[in-house]
Amino acid sequence: MTSERKRLLIVGGVAGGASCAARARRLSETAEIIMFERGQYVSFANCGLPYYVGDVITDEQKLIVANADLFKDRFNIDVRLENEVLDIDKETATIKVKNNKTGEIYQESYDALVLAPGAASIRPQLPGIDLPGIFAVRTIPDSRRIREWIEQKQVKRAVVVGGGFIGLEMTENLLHRGIAVTLLQNQSQVMAPLDPEMAAPIHDRLAAHGVKLRLGDGVVGFESNPDGSINAIAESGEIHTTDLVILAIGVRPETTLAKAAGLEIGARGGIRVNEQMQTSDRRIWAVGDAVEVQDFVTKEWTFIPLAGPANRQGRIAANAIFDRNTNFRGVQGTSVCGLLGLAIASTGANEKTLKHLGWSYDKVYLHPGHHVGYYPNAKPINMKLLFSPVDGKILGAQAVGEDGVEKRIDVISMAIQLGATVYDLEEAELCYAPQFGAAKDPVNLAGMIAANDLNQDAPLAHWEYLPKLNGLLLDVRGVNEFAAGHVEGAINIPLPELRQRMSELPAEKEIWVYCQVGQRGYYATRALRLNGFDAYNLSGGFKTYQARKN
Amino acid sequence: MTSERKRLLIVGGVAGGASCAARARRLSETAEIIMFERGQYVSFANCGLPYYVGDVITDEQKLIVANADLFKDRFNIDVRLENEVLDIDKETATIKVKNNKTGEIYQESYDALVLAPGAASIRPQLPGIDLPGIFAVRTIPDSRRIREWIEQKQVKRAVVVGGGFIGLEMTENLLHRGIAVTLLQNQSQVMAPLDPEMAAPIHDRLAAHGVKLRLGDGVVGFESNPDGSINAIAESGEIHTTDLVILAIGVRPETTLAKAAGLEIGARGGIRVNEQMQTSDRRIWAVGDAVEVQDFVTKEWTFIPLAGPANRQGRIAANAIFDRNTNFRGVQGTSVCGLLGLAIASTGANEKTLKHLGWSYDKVYLHPGHHVGYYPNAKPINMKLLFSPVDGKILGAQAVGEDGVEKRIDVISMAIQLGATVYDLEEAELCYAPQFGAAKDPVNLAGMIAANDLNQDAPLAHWEYLPKLNGLLLDVRGVNEFAAGHVEGAINIPLPELRQRMSELPAEKEIWVYCQVGQRGYYATRALRLNGFDAYNLSGGFKTYQARKN
Repeated sequence: MTSERKRLLIVGGVAGGASCAARARRLSETAEIIMFERGQYVSFANCGLPYYVGDVITDEQKLIVANADLFKDRFNIDVRLENEVLDIDKETATIKVKNNKTGEIYQESYDALVLAPGAASIRPQLPGIDLPGIFAVRTIPDSRRIREWIEQKQVKRAVVVGGGFIGLEMTENLLHRGIAVTLLQNQSQVMAPLDPEMAAPIHDRLAAHGVKLRLGDGVVGFESNPDGSINAIAESGEIHTTDLVILAIGVRPETTLAKAAGLEIGARGGIRVNEQMQTSDRRIWAVGDAVEVQDFVTKEWTFIPLAGPANRQGRIAANAIFDRNTNFRGVQGTSVCGLLGLAIASTGANEKTLKHLGWSYDKVYLHPGHHVGYYPNAKPINMKLLFSPVDGKILGAQAVGEDGVEKRIDVISMAIQLGATVYDLEEAELCYAPQFGAAKDPVNLAGMIAANDLNQDAPLAHWEYLPKLNGLLLDVRGVNEFAAGHVEGAINIPLPELRQRMSELPAEKEIWVYCQVGQRGYYATRALRLNGFDAYNLSGGFKTYQARKN
Repeated sequence: MTSERKRLLIVGGVAGGASCAARARRLSETAEIIMFERGQYVSFANCGLPYYVGDVITDEQKLIVANADLFKDRFNIDVRLENEVLDIDKETATIKVKNNKTGEIYQESYDALVLAPGAASIRPQLPGIDLPGIFAVRTIPDSRRIREWIEQKQVKRAVVVGGGFIGLEMTENLLHRGIAVTLLQNQSQVMAPLDPEMAAPIHDRLAAHGVKLRLGDGVVGFESNPDGSINAIAESGEIHTTDLVILAIGVRPETTLAKAAGLEIGARGGIRVNEQMQTSDRRIWAVGDAVEVQDFVTKEWTFIPLAGPANRQGRIAANAIFDRNTNFRGVQGTSVCGLLGLAIASTGANEKTLKHLGWSYDKVYLHPGHHVGYYPNAKPINMKLLFSPVDGKILGAQAVGEDGVEKRIDVISMAIQLGATVYDLEEAELCYAPQFGAAKDPVNLAGMIAANDLNQDAPLAHWEYLPKLNGLLLDVRGVNEFAAGHVEGAINIPLPELRQRMSELPAEKEIWVYCQVGQRGYYATRALRLNGFDAYNLSGGFKTYQARKN
């Protein structure tokens, strides 16, 4: 039992703030805990909003994980809705609050203050941005307004601006309501956490569902038409006439209060905190989407708005305030997005980041089934694993497919957090029954391919370096597969004939081998190397080659 | 390039043997590799057989992962089907082989010999055991015969003897063919890797699908009836008249050859090997279902016939033979079984084993949804986590539910292999989107509950010790929940009223708190402890209480 009677004020009542408040009460029965929320709801399911718009979640009440009464009843926490914190005075440890329902402005003092203001949708100052029918998706009222707009205007066409998590989820949900979607993405790929070649199947899937996808083309303005429709004007000059615009360009950390209070802000624009989530002021902590955190793998400061880390940070801040030292380990960016039957998941660093930082890394591509092929309905998973060429330490992984995708990323995420290597993935003992996996799970395979590369048993080549090849490109697939499509300049010796036809191959040159996904290429590479050839296996095979071309 | 020309003989051509052969070729192009298989097939999908019987897999060819021609073409491996190895002469390093197609008996010498004979179905010498219509399910011909029997005899009723993986999978598949199933299990629960209270939902599921489940009742004999049906006579005296009997009592390591050759046999009856899968003879290795292996967690010798470890062992033996030292890390027993929409998964040690070994352990039960509740169709997962009370090291986990089950066990399996603690599970960063998980994933929750127990924040009580409670049993659920069913002797104070009504509680006695699944109980326990009460949370709540009663 603790005898302290701390006064803890929390600004913001969604993921990080709500977790912090509940945890704080579990650490002290005597503390006075007040949570200020500018909006009308605390602890609501932010991640569910697109599905509420899409009518997959039909009952708005389901989005409210816990309301103010529950916080009072269960946790003896005073929740003040529509109360906006205007100002922090660090010296006197007080905040100024405005009750937006009454207009009253008042002060509260604190022993500890936690900032959990979240992030705000980026809303660029474009011409026409404030036209009716242009929405962001951050709150329950936002979503309600979009639903109402769809019904009232009988929306048939929508433009989604931005191809990140929210943009893709909104695309799926608008399609679910029978609305035709144009997706504008100013980058050359959707889903920035993935490397471009891993995003190719997502582009294909969007196209297959009739989405008009415009890559490398952002929006520059909007104008209204006499019939009430909106023209979304793209950078390219293309005009998309639509009934509804969803802005999903991204979010920026909400740091207005923190900046005004003179708290340290990081290079990425988020509130800077230490491992206990403490800001540059010893009585102020900050958690959730407003803070910068260290990337677990690269140790770089980063800004990754995810609910899981926000919840953990809330707990850690409460622990620190009540004298329990726990440390935030950093974020791995583990995430998943469902899109039109695909799951898109990743963890750790991607190749873009590693290249940008100048890290040395190696990588493997693979395309295993999500379970054994002999059981019906095996779905391929496109996987990429990044690892250190020095010691095999896992740096990151990406996967896209219809089933069993996020499972593999979760396993690799756990492995990354524990500092594991590709050799640990090789030896992982994972669940296998025909419906669920394989005796060699995709995670094992990724580890094996990487280990074979590292120990030079079957060193890998990568398609992007093909133009530099001064040697032979060898396709070891069957004659029919070769005839149906192959890489220009490749010669074909099917694997079963390879041992008999090795004399046809140059002893003095590099031989880059490929098959459909990499397995036969691996067998061929081993046979060639053991026979003295300087052979390399093109990682991911023809399938990865095609993904790169898209 | 290796210049050696070793002669490698492999006895048995399914999982472990086939993996070993293929790996060996990847390590040496010059070795002579001969694989002897008593049966008609190598490298077939053992785990798919029940689904072939059930007509889920309809094409028998799909069960053949690789045939003899493929081994020849791809790997230059000489596969000798229907060739039975009769004898090993360790001194001269030769084996005696019988070609069962021709009757010829011949000898082959070896530099290295790998035994991968697998396991044989246990077929107890019961009266009537050889009657037509009584089958085991180990091979493709076995399955083909069962299919034929079902069709020819128009089987309407079946008795399955044994409630392990094969027994349950056969039950599902027979039901899938419209056959009524009686399942006889001589133990008091099905699925021995689980603890009994975790098997309760499986019993319920079987009953819900009309399976006549007889627990604690084995079979003692069979007799045939004039109409061609079979009476399966149970220990209890009950007679089950049926058209088909499936024996799925278990398997025993096939050690005939090894014993005759004087190789060391372990206490559990399997071939004893070291970490490189080498037997007591330096030129003989053994892999797969015939060997005893060390349990990764308990370090006890054990016998776990699983395809994943068999494959890894095959690779490790080949590595050792070609002078690459890799070590088998032991088995965790990670496994999953699909049954009538349930997935049943486990990894590491169960409580029965830990108790038997006299280990100190603690445990948590939880019943989280497989994804957030606000997204449609969340399915509960019944989970149990076992861990060390000393340092929180994870010892084992079990889970049963309809979705997302084996994912959580895979993550925990990876964690166990890396020596992780419950604190690592707390901090795990796992994929979250509404369809896939939760900001606090079930794996996080398991870690949090365990950590709260270990650090005495919310110490757990367990239902089996309830009779010893000298104190108060407190139900903190709502009044209606309490009225609908509660534990005898419990008093009810709903959580929201608890802070106001603490004066009703005894300060000097233990208070054991429960709610439906453990969450409100946790909040109550914290509030009580912070107010000076000696409170404990009954792990898993009323739901676990009910599972124990079943």
